[in-house]
Amino acid sequence: MNARLRDIEQLHIELPDLDWITDPNRIERLSQDFSWFSPVLKRQLDGKVADSVVRPRTEDEIRRLVAACARLKLPLTIRGSGTGNYGQTTPLAGGVVLDMTGYNGVLWTRPGVARAQAGIRLNELEKATRPTGWELRCVPSTFRSATLGGLFGGGFGGVGSINHGPLAAPGNVLGIKAMTIEPEPQIVELRGAEAMRMHHLWGTNGLVLEIEVGLAPCQPWLETLVTFADFDQALAFADEVARAPGLAKREVAFFASPVPDYLSQLAEHLPKGCHAVLSLVAEPGEEAMKAMAAARGGTVSYRRSADEVARSHKTLMEFTWNHTTLHALKVDKTLTYLQTSFTAGQHVQQITELTKRYAGEVFMHAEFLRTMDGQLSCSALQLVRFTTEERLAEIIQEHRDYGVRINNPHTFIVEDGKAGGDLPEEVVAMKRRFDPLGLLNPGKLRHHPVAG
Amino acid sequence: MNARLRDIEQLHIELPDLDWITDPNRIERLSQDFSWFSPVLKRQLDGKVADSVVRPRTEDEIRRLVAACARLKLPLTIRGSGTGNYGQTTPLAGGVVLDMTGYNGVLWTRPGVARAQAGIRLNELEKATRPTGWELRCVPSTFRSATLGGLFGGGFGGVGSINHGPLAAPGNVLGIKAMTIEPEPQIVELRGAEAMRMHHLWGTNGLVLEIEVGLAPCQPWLETLVTFADFDQALAFADEVARAPGLAKREVAFFASPVPDYLSQLAEHLPKGCHAVLSLVAEPGEEAMKAMAAARGGTVSYRRSADEVARSHKTLMEFTWNHTTLHALKVDKTLTYLQTSFTAGQHVQQITELTKRYAGEVFMHAEFLRTMDGQLSCSALQLVRFTTEERLAEIIQEHRDYGVRINNPHTFIVEDGKAGGDLPEEVVAMKRRFDPLGLLNPGKLRHHPVAG
Repeated sequence: MNARLRDIEQLHIELPDLDWITDPNRIERLSQDFSWFSPVLKRQLDGKVADSVVRPRTEDEIRRLVAACARLKLPLTIRGSGTGNYGQTTPLAGGVVLDMTGYNGVLWTRPGVARAQAGIRLNELEKATRPTGWELRCVPSTFRSATLGGLFGGGFGGVGSINHGPLAAPGNVLGIKAMTIEPEPQIVELRGAEAMRMHHLWGTNGLVLEIEVGLAPCQPWLETLVTFADFDQALAFADEVARAPGLAKREVAFFASPVPDYLSQLAEHLPKGCHAVLSLVAEPGEEAMKAMAAARGGTVSYRRSADEVARSHKTLMEFTWNHTTLHALKVDKTLTYLQTSFTAGQHVQQITELTKRYAGEVFMHAEFLRTMDGQLSCSALQLVRFTTEERLAEIIQEHRDYGVRINNPHTFIVEDGKAGGDLPEEVVAMKRRFDPLGLLNPGKLRHHPVAG
Repeated sequence: MNARLRDIEQLHIELPDLDWITDPNRIERLSQDFSWFSPVLKRQLDGKVADSVVRPRTEDEIRRLVAACARLKLPLTIRGSGTGNYGQTTPLAGGVVLDMTGYNGVLWTRPGVARAQAGIRLNELEKATRPTGWELRCVPSTFRSATLGGLFGGGFGGVGSINHGPLAAPGNVLGIKAMTIEPEPQIVELRGAEAMRMHHLWGTNGLVLEIEVGLAPCQPWLETLVTFADFDQALAFADEVARAPGLAKREVAFFASPVPDYLSQLAEHLPKGCHAVLSLVAEPGEEAMKAMAAARGGTVSYRRSADEVARSHKTLMEFTWNHTTLHALKVDKTLTYLQTSFTAGQHVQQITELTKRYAGEVFMHAEFLRTMDGQLSCSALQLVRFTTEERLAEIIQEHRDYGVRINNPHTFIVEDGKAGGDLPEEVVAMKRRFDPLGLLNPGKLRHHPVAG
């Protein structure tokens, strides 16, 4: 037994009342996330596994665990439910995976705000807020299983970002409570901009215990698919619905052919070869939206009222954002994907040009959203027919040369993904303050200020 | 007694059960609106008065009145509660003023939609929708007295247009029921784009009976004034709040110095010489909004929670849009105003340049809104120190030459105001269809297709 494993054993002995997961298969599974979407990450992270996984249920359990790990200098990797795509829950240096899903209470809700423990599933949080007339502002397509802490630690936004922008926009996250990784852990409330210094850092610079989020008023969302024979008309319709200030909406996605062909569960509603627009528009806007579709030659091929959606427990939301990728990968294992941010105002032109340029290799799936400063734009999660890592890197570089931003999902290094370069000094300062021993998820920050 | 007055007498005899207003002072008052904001309209409309005013209470009363007027070829001018500014309720050719305020029932509400008779006051309609969690999308500052039909017939939007754009944006008005002006009046339901062909036509091309409007979810609106010593910082703060996708809001107005000095009822909150930003932001956004204010050197000088506003029956909404003008005119009778639409994306620069250019003569009051295609922009209702009609016309022309749009409020001709040119053929067709005898508000359309 090496020193690391002796320390793990020591931990189990010191904290026998914690919920330890000891089955090697479960430990392996709980060391992974959806990074297998990327053939690059799949190769790089192969075999990386925790020495132990623990699922604390109270702040006191978390505190005792953190204190012990800090004393033993054991690496700690924080995990929600593993719906992330960047390998952020895979420990590169073994140690303990801290599964937060047992720490999942709603603390309070009031009009337009809720506060919950980080391990709560988004769907469970929304079950608590909906009866009061409020829903979550920005949720990933994985909302059924994804946790609030996971969204904060590794997410961007998603369904609802067409109204509220990315999760990082001021007002979406109001505050967090975080713990330092020290033998005597400290607990600190961080508000506003200061809280956001732990956002999208993959749990590398602090352990987030509680999150307070802004909510959106519930509306009766009509779910539709509108199909088109013509690419330009389909994209123009999506853009028009997304822009229209008189149409309340929660989601608008554009799938260029052949993306709809991969959505096999919706096949009866998606004629082979079509372009499709998926939307959630508030029911009162149905007439106006249908008039826009008709004017552009679109066909409403799927329509579910808000009541029908609620009764069926099926929602088109689970065909958007990275769920589109997931459905496609189920059908064709040779696919992978890109994450692209277009330029607000030029997004229609950029989508059109890039779709043509990569016909047969990169398939356009664009999500409409508001940027940090409220402009309408798109992000794309294009499907890519994967050949080699070199070709994938070339495609990424060509997109950057063209003038769009790529948030590279084929890296497990924070700086090389969405952050796209050196971290701001205030984020690095957070790392120093909350993880002075450098135990959090080691290896995911390229330049961290702690002597490992 | 001339022929016209004999006809009026005939009308009274034929329809004795209608609510006729016969007192000459009341007839004079009910022939006017707030066109006195304009010294030009005040001069032009002086002495224009109805021969009779009637206040029907049912569709049947309206139908019988219209049938009789059509038979007698009596001019009919439709009026809400007279909060308009373009003289649209002042009959140029005498005849009957049809006061719609007695026809004021709520027909139904459902999530996100309500339908009511045109004469309902906006505040009364909102009293019916609020308990179900919904409020009106776009309301003028005159919402307490203004009617739904008046807003549709002569309004633009207002508070809430920062989310939903102008009233004309698809989805805001879902449909109307209108009556033709004929001896046998027909009643027609018009939906969507077709309904909008009677919008902002000042009741010249149809008599609107019922209106169905999209609603917005209620949110707990915090009302604040933030004051600044620096013009640029104040405007940048207003723009930032208006853009911020994570801040739910209902209203953002910018008052450059000396506009706040005219708001005497708020004087204790507005230091002499300050620039001020008035906003309604949802309460959960308060911290984020205050951080933005502090970063730009702003001072929160007035703050009322949603509960405090509800209890006090006082709202800052009644200091926005043309209420700002009203408050200023109460203090200084030499003022009048402009209506300006800036170019989305260039609005901050345009506001800055125009404010400097007209220092001492035109005082900037800008309202943030979304355009028809969802871009953030501003309209301004600048205060103007009036000297002569020639100078006013010159200022308007200079603004147009500079490159911003002026919706001239100093004309009673539809084409010369917001419409800004010839009317679309489909609007003219509506006039032919709904007013074949040319009886509606004659003189307000320059080119109408009916031989008068």
